[in-house]
Amino acid sequence: MENTRKNIELENLKYDSQGLLTTVVQHANSGEVLMVAWMNADALQRTLETHQAYFWSRSRNELWHKGETSGNFLSVQEIWVDCDADTLLLKVIPAGPACHTGALSCFFRKMEDKDVR
Amino acid sequence: MENTRKNIELENLKYDSQGLLTTVVQHANSGEVLMVAWMNADALQRTLETHQAYFWSRSRNELWHKGETSGNFLSVQEIWVDCDADTLLLKVIPAGPACHTGALSCFFRKMEDKDVR
Repeated sequence: MENTRKNIELENLKYDSQGLLTTVVQHANSGEVLMVAWMNADALQRTLETHQAYFWSRSRNELWHKGETSGNFLSVQEIWVDCDADTLLLKVIPAGPACHTGALSCFFRKMEDKDVR
Repeated sequence: MENTRKNIELENLKYDSQGLLTTVVQHANSGEVLMVAWMNADALQRTLETHQAYFWSRSRNELWHKGETSGNFLSVQEIWVDCDADTLLLKVIPAGPACHTGALSCFFRKMEDKDVR
């Protein structure tokens, strides 16, 4: 099992100086962008093994199984890698609101129209 | 004009230790996630003023007007801010492929099914 994980995608991932990959989480059905978080190699491996999203909490400095306290786990359907291999896109089915505020998406505040157009 | 920009959203943005905000770029119509880049305050201000996406290039250490060489500018329709105020979501109409490889999205490589599920 270990060997099958060492395919070219995983080997070529480019972790930043803190050993992290920026990770965008998108709803697999609606396409809504739900949140952005960071993964280290351990979080990615656990995500691949369990098909649930794990991240590295930069504020708590610990592995973070998304949903471990809220129950709102993220079921990972697909993982895409960007051209620089330093950013991941997870397509997920969320068990509930992705944001700790209770919002479906962490991006619930829009900049005012007068600033954007 | 300066005063109108100093609304609560802009004041509350939480730039990281390098003065940057993680920025996700999503197609305003299809919902496809096109790329992830970083903005400093100057890039954000120019984006707000021109309605075209500007970023801070971390590799070149310079302001980056997306599309300045390719012509593939990003017309910014909406800007959303996440719960932590350290990440932006831009909804854009791209003038062409968003990726420097010519792909519509930078996320054109999918991890193998055996790894994901």
